[in-house]
Amino acid sequence: MTEQKATNVQWHDGEVTRAERGQLLGQKGATIWFTGLSGSGKSTIAVALEKVLQGKGHLAYRLDGDNIRLGINKNLGFTAEDRTENIRRIGEVAKLFVDAGVIALTSFISPYKADREIVRKLHEAAGMDFIEIYVEVPLAEAEKRDPKGLYKKARAGEIKNFTGISDPYEAPEAPELVLHTAEMTLTQEVEAVLALLAERGIIKA
Amino acid sequence: MTEQKATNVQWHDGEVTRAERGQLLGQKGATIWFTGLSGSGKSTIAVALEKVLQGKGHLAYRLDGDNIRLGINKNLGFTAEDRTENIRRIGEVAKLFVDAGVIALTSFISPYKADREIVRKLHEAAGMDFIEIYVEVPLAEAEKRDPKGLYKKARAGEIKNFTGISDPYEAPEAPELVLHTAEMTLTQEVEAVLALLAERGIIKA
Repeated sequence: MTEQKATNVQWHDGEVTRAERGQLLGQKGATIWFTGLSGSGKSTIAVALEKVLQGKGHLAYRLDGDNIRLGINKNLGFTAEDRTENIRRIGEVAKLFVDAGVIALTSFISPYKADREIVRKLHEAAGMDFIEIYVEVPLAEAEKRDPKGLYKKARAGEIKNFTGISDPYEAPEAPELVLHTAEMTLTQEVEAVLALLAERGIIKA
Repeated sequence: MTEQKATNVQWHDGEVTRAERGQLLGQKGATIWFTGLSGSGKSTIAVALEKVLQGKGHLAYRLDGDNIRLGINKNLGFTAEDRTENIRRIGEVAKLFVDAGVIALTSFISPYKADREIVRKLHEAAGMDFIEIYVEVPLAEAEKRDPKGLYKKARAGEIKNFTGISDPYEAPEAPELVLHTAEMTLTQEVEAVLALLAERGIIKA
């Protein structure tokens, strides 16, 4: 776990609770954590889900791998240490959104099981829903799709520490949902997530 | 400016815009940045403002110095370098909330002008409202209040790098609003901020 540096700090409760913010929004804040190989479809599903949720009057917000790396995590690279810090910070940001009552949609490769577990525990310790969704695709299929041309560069040695090629991907053992994107349509994938959110009371059925 | 480490990243636009999220919420996302000495009243004002906004049906969320230091910035201390990184990360998180349509209320000493300017520019470059509010109090008065007993510890040398005692506070030159908390009631302070938010079209008048 990351060491706490600052002393003389304590949690300040406000006068508005998480539940009250959720009531205002007609939903329950939660983190929907998509994990999977590059090219598996994480961002595509998150973008489609965000649109459907907005259409239903729900406030969702996407935290996206590339977007976050241009902002809060711009000072992090792709070493194992930086990947861990990348996921830790994202987990903390997602938790703030959940506390605000928002449905946070995160789409990060997040290849290490231990890092995802830290984020799950962060949420669960605060009584927050953490929904881990494994966006599964065979490596060969992801490499065939290669939407950003990254696998090609990784195979050529132009990108180091690339998940699936030169860095491991540790699949979730007990995710809340698995989406086999080589065998499902985008609509089916979104419907499966919506059903789970309704079942969990995050959105209305 | 912080160096961009990761390459092969680009901004992903979703299919829901910031304006659409604002419409859903009946407000415009914005960062309300309270700056001032420890004990000036930043958190007290933010807590009261949050409550009034919620009562009016607006979604606000407080990013608080101590709270953030227990989470995303737990690996940062109080050296000048760490303070700068602290504010940089907070600015990026606030920007995500603004993008989500939320009114972000930040209460951090944020003593360095250059750091606040970086956050302002981050927002303005993205077409976002950044409302800097100087929560002004004479040092002697803040030290007399000393709600957390920190000034006493700082004078005794038990806390290093303490703003106002052993570290500088650089007052804003052109903040959007100044609240002289030694001369105003909390109600007056909150009303002054609400009036400004209405004037800027962040909330309805």
